[in-house]
Amino acid sequence: MKIGILGTISWRTPPRHYGPWETVVYNLTEGLVDRGYDVTLFATGDSITRAKLEWVCPHGFYEDESLDAGVYQWLHISTALEKAHEFDIVHSHYDFYPLTFTRFIKTPLLTTIHGFSSHKILPVYNKYWDNYYVSISDADRAEGLNYLATVYNGVDVNAFDFNDEAGEYLLFFGRISHDKGTHRAIKVAKRTGMTLKIAGLVAGEHRKYFDDFIVPQIDGEQIQYLGMVDEKTRNDLFRNAYANLHLVSFAEPFGLTIVESLACGTPVIAINKGSVPEIITEGKTGFIVNSLDEAVERVDEVSTIDRNDCRNRAEFFSIDNMVDGYIKVYDRIMELETYR
Amino acid sequence: MKIGILGTISWRTPPRHYGPWETVVYNLTEGLVDRGYDVTLFATGDSITRAKLEWVCPHGFYEDESLDAGVYQWLHISTALEKAHEFDIVHSHYDFYPLTFTRFIKTPLLTTIHGFSSHKILPVYNKYWDNYYVSISDADRAEGLNYLATVYNGVDVNAFDFNDEAGEYLLFFGRISHDKGTHRAIKVAKRTGMTLKIAGLVAGEHRKYFDDFIVPQIDGEQIQYLGMVDEKTRNDLFRNAYANLHLVSFAEPFGLTIVESLACGTPVIAINKGSVPEIITEGKTGFIVNSLDEAVERVDEVSTIDRNDCRNRAEFFSIDNMVDGYIKVYDRIMELETYR
Repeated sequence: MKIGILGTISWRTPPRHYGPWETVVYNLTEGLVDRGYDVTLFATGDSITRAKLEWVCPHGFYEDESLDAGVYQWLHISTALEKAHEFDIVHSHYDFYPLTFTRFIKTPLLTTIHGFSSHKILPVYNKYWDNYYVSISDADRAEGLNYLATVYNGVDVNAFDFNDEAGEYLLFFGRISHDKGTHRAIKVAKRTGMTLKIAGLVAGEHRKYFDDFIVPQIDGEQIQYLGMVDEKTRNDLFRNAYANLHLVSFAEPFGLTIVESLACGTPVIAINKGSVPEIITEGKTGFIVNSLDEAVERVDEVSTIDRNDCRNRAEFFSIDNMVDGYIKVYDRIMELETYR
Repeated sequence: MKIGILGTISWRTPPRHYGPWETVVYNLTEGLVDRGYDVTLFATGDSITRAKLEWVCPHGFYEDESLDAGVYQWLHISTALEKAHEFDIVHSHYDFYPLTFTRFIKTPLLTTIHGFSSHKILPVYNKYWDNYYVSISDADRAEGLNYLATVYNGVDVNAFDFNDEAGEYLLFFGRISHDKGTHRAIKVAKRTGMTLKIAGLVAGEHRKYFDDFIVPQIDGEQIQYLGMVDEKTRNDLFRNAYANLHLVSFAEPFGLTIVESLACGTPVIAINKGSVPEIITEGKTGFIVNSLDEAVERVDEVSTIDRNDCRNRAEFFSIDNMVDGYIKVYDRIMELETYR
């Protein structure tokens, strides 16, 4: 089977630092290559892959300001889909945009919806509802679309070192933003008297939130901000933590950092929204809470959790399982296409 | 001949106030209908036309903030081009975006390039250089594109009342921005002691420029700001002016307000950039200057200009001439297509 993977051009694939969609695309592409599929990856020119690489955009447009995102999005997608006839299936990870070309191509396009950025993008999905879709959690589905499956994002579990002993600090890991609840993690730390380590990207649009709400709380002792960290530090931060705080205010489509934390053995206290109940088993690998008060109450109980259970749960979200999941979907599409 | 006109969805067609591309699209569409062509206009749902109207975006996305521009651009363009086979020619006024679909459609696409917003958009034009292009002035051309003609924008000259007597004030008419040189017009007024009337839109991104550089100069006497004005007021402003100041800092692709001013008999003092020498005849319908000092010097000489010459020049840029120009291009494309 010849597969075209239509990745993004926001960041290099795999991403140097932040880039969850690019991470999934990388893991899937390499996994398919390992299983002997003929794979072409459409991504930035500096991407690294053992698949064939096709590109028009030399670097991630967030990494090279000479590149206009609005221009290269159209060019990247059109150039990839002009080659659609070379593949049995094209698998898009580029949001709703490539859907607008699907009336022109005969090759089936599968779209993994890595989240709905806003209800304003629904008109495109509504028009092209009869394409093939995969959701990344059961919770993250829009009505009326032709979903074939949920395929959970796979994590390279082996890249995370398990630690069966709990550490002594709380962790906030991920983009710093109001939505992600960095300020809520700080409140939990202050109310429990524990240390909080914060690591993650401050994107331009969240700079004011960071400056106004987070910076004044950072004392370098109880509340520490470590910036963006490399893989080694990330690993250490996760494995040596007592608990990871995931107190977001929106329904997250998946929750990559939850799985990464579990892979290191660190339980997660997470708000009961979106995909959280699909990942965390209440009382066994973390706690699913409905309020800040509840989060504070659960901090003590984290010590009752067997960190081996966390690791075991994380292994379910392996890259292998993800690749297997997508292969099943590809096979199903091939079957459905014979009836067209 | 069945013609699809792919207009924009930034504003309604015709625009309620500002909207130069939408104005050209409207004038062309109605002109083609008048000549008996079978025309379909792709524009916002609230657009007004005697052609067939097709739409997916109910309102201009600048006029209705519930609409996401990035979403509706893709949807508007894909939906229009999915119907390309219904036409002998599709004529795009939607920048570079529809080019990315041209490898998928058989109907020839003609693109009028209403200006290059930035050199960053050139990669798309470079890839699709072998499409059909029209420039709106000889000055506004990129190298290597397959241009069939320059077709100047047509102005509804009859909508502007000629006045053979010069008024006593200077005029700045158009978007308020640094590029457009509102502050330069103020300097010329102050150095010549004349009154300046300013009218035009302050777009969001130019609000700071307006607040910092323009507002402190407005005294309601010598320097007057009238905001966005209706057609009647625009007409009066143009016809009763002494001279129109067009001291832009960039190479304008055309210069609609120059023609509108000339139509009312008012000469234009304009910076020697872009299309200006193609519109203004030096010393006869205005002055082409290279500096602010020169602009100040020329103000006195405006009185030597015969305002009838201005009106005559404006009539060259009529809607009829524009429509004739495009019909010639359409015929040429039909001829070229027979050799494909």
